[in-house]
Amino acid sequence: MSNHFADRLLRAIAEKKTPAVVSIDPVYSRLPAEIAEHRDLNDEGDVEAALDAVLEYCRRVIKLVAPFVPAVKLNSAYFERYYWEGVEGYYELVQEAAQRGLIVIGDVKRGDIEHSSDMYARAHLAEPDFTNLDDLDSPDAITASGYFGIDGIKPFIDVAASQPVGKGVFVLVRTSNESAATIQDAMLADGRRVHELMAAEVAQWAADAGIGARGYSSVGAVVSTRDAAVAGRLRALLPQSLLLVPGYGAQGLQAADVAPFFKSDGSGAIVAAGRSVIYAYEDPRYIERFTSEWEKCIEQACRDFVTALQGVVKIG
Amino acid sequence: MSNHFADRLLRAIAEKKTPAVVSIDPVYSRLPAEIAEHRDLNDEGDVEAALDAVLEYCRRVIKLVAPFVPAVKLNSAYFERYYWEGVEGYYELVQEAAQRGLIVIGDVKRGDIEHSSDMYARAHLAEPDFTNLDDLDSPDAITASGYFGIDGIKPFIDVAASQPVGKGVFVLVRTSNESAATIQDAMLADGRRVHELMAAEVAQWAADAGIGARGYSSVGAVVSTRDAAVAGRLRALLPQSLLLVPGYGAQGLQAADVAPFFKSDGSGAIVAAGRSVIYAYEDPRYIERFTSEWEKCIEQACRDFVTALQGVVKIG
Repeated sequence: MSNHFADRLLRAIAEKKTPAVVSIDPVYSRLPAEIAEHRDLNDEGDVEAALDAVLEYCRRVIKLVAPFVPAVKLNSAYFERYYWEGVEGYYELVQEAAQRGLIVIGDVKRGDIEHSSDMYARAHLAEPDFTNLDDLDSPDAITASGYFGIDGIKPFIDVAASQPVGKGVFVLVRTSNESAATIQDAMLADGRRVHELMAAEVAQWAADAGIGARGYSSVGAVVSTRDAAVAGRLRALLPQSLLLVPGYGAQGLQAADVAPFFKSDGSGAIVAAGRSVIYAYEDPRYIERFTSEWEKCIEQACRDFVTALQGVVKIG
Repeated sequence: MSNHFADRLLRAIAEKKTPAVVSIDPVYSRLPAEIAEHRDLNDEGDVEAALDAVLEYCRRVIKLVAPFVPAVKLNSAYFERYYWEGVEGYYELVQEAAQRGLIVIGDVKRGDIEHSSDMYARAHLAEPDFTNLDDLDSPDAITASGYFGIDGIKPFIDVAASQPVGKGVFVLVRTSNESAATIQDAMLADGRRVHELMAAEVAQWAADAGIGARGYSSVGAVVSTRDAAVAGRLRALLPQSLLLVPGYGAQGLQAADVAPFFKSDGSGAIVAAGRSVIYAYEDPRYIERFTSEWEKCIEQACRDFVTALQGVVKIG
């Protein structure tokens, strides 16, 4: 079996029969009451107590969603918020998710000039090269900023390619937030938008990075829009890239919105939902059904997410 | 005395009579032999030994340059490379530099959509809100990505404004690497380059963020180019922003190149040199003078950097 990152991700998608990814962005104030109340972890002002509660919650979310989805995405910001101990917790969760057979995407959005990006790539993507950390797992892929051009991305691509198990990088092309348009949709003199230029660059980097058995590169792209024409154009501009589509659910994307990011064979994208799954126990529809059984709410929301995607994308 | 970030930085510049900033980007393999040899820290494969050596070196660099420069810039990538322990070391160095009276810029280049940027801002810019971390210092300012537009930057601005001592954010506008041009210099339909659009946005954010007593905002910009016309245009586009200019020395910028980033009164920019100062003990010119006295090499290179800038910028 091919060790190429794209092939690994595509196998995981085929196995779970869905391109659904759960984003884990834990916020202390939204944790289920049970987590805070029953474990003496109810002090947001104490960094260790707060982090312990957050990690316990994340471990349970990972366990709940692991049977249904091929991958999880961990957003580094929500762990860095707890300083170095939060960073240690982040790596523990990477390990936890890997042990449950999930592909792990580290949503770190790093980027810098050449040598500095190399340091970020070693920290976040490489398997540790320290003898006393040799049992530590790093994410299978990370997100990265393309604003620096190839200098800033090449170290991530090179580190991804040099690992015993192939790893990947998703470059930010079109983000899901409202003000993304300001820079990313600005019109260029040649008639393209800035995000289309970025997409064309990423397509070239993807082609140069080496293509897996299924025709996809280890260099993917982060894309999100509710405009079907824009989505279709991004799909066409990035023929060899897997697209990571955030913003499903709470951020506004629905199943029909994500259809244009897939090729006609149902491949080519993964769709990430965060708050609509991991905070499903705040949603009246799930509360009505499961009352305070928060884990059942998350499990059902994860199943509903998978079902909704199956309505628009058929995985072979 | 005004607590506004820009006023604090301008006071520090006036006190040291230079806008010179030292960038601290430590690479284990380039550490002075003394650091590795005399402290049993000569095992790059052991994360703790390697990090201890790196931190010892950084503490000595900070002590050496503190008398001469108003600020240091710590690049997070070089500490994240040592995982959570490296992150702890980074915060220790922030503290060390602050105690020596330096303004500290955390070169973290973070950015994400709204809520995630808020988490990054709490982690990297806010004073810790945890009772058991209340003696921890955070940087006085950080670098951040503007690709997301205002949504992604506003949390940094808000956190900066809400601190007891005013903090700042430098948004990436034009970076110093060779491939920066690919995206950042792309020509827009309206005749501007992408980095000029970014500069115009940052100028607006800067104006909205509140201006200090000297006319500068807490929102600055990272800009670097050897093209004097581009530099002059960026200066004009960002009238209320302090410009952080990286790339001096080893990356190719010379004193004459940075002159256009300053206003006629000598204010408006800080210039960062990294490798040309912190690895001066690898430079034949300094070796010839000081042989293996690596600390003297660094001190002299720092003085030379300050002197070179004084040739083009007069601090009142």
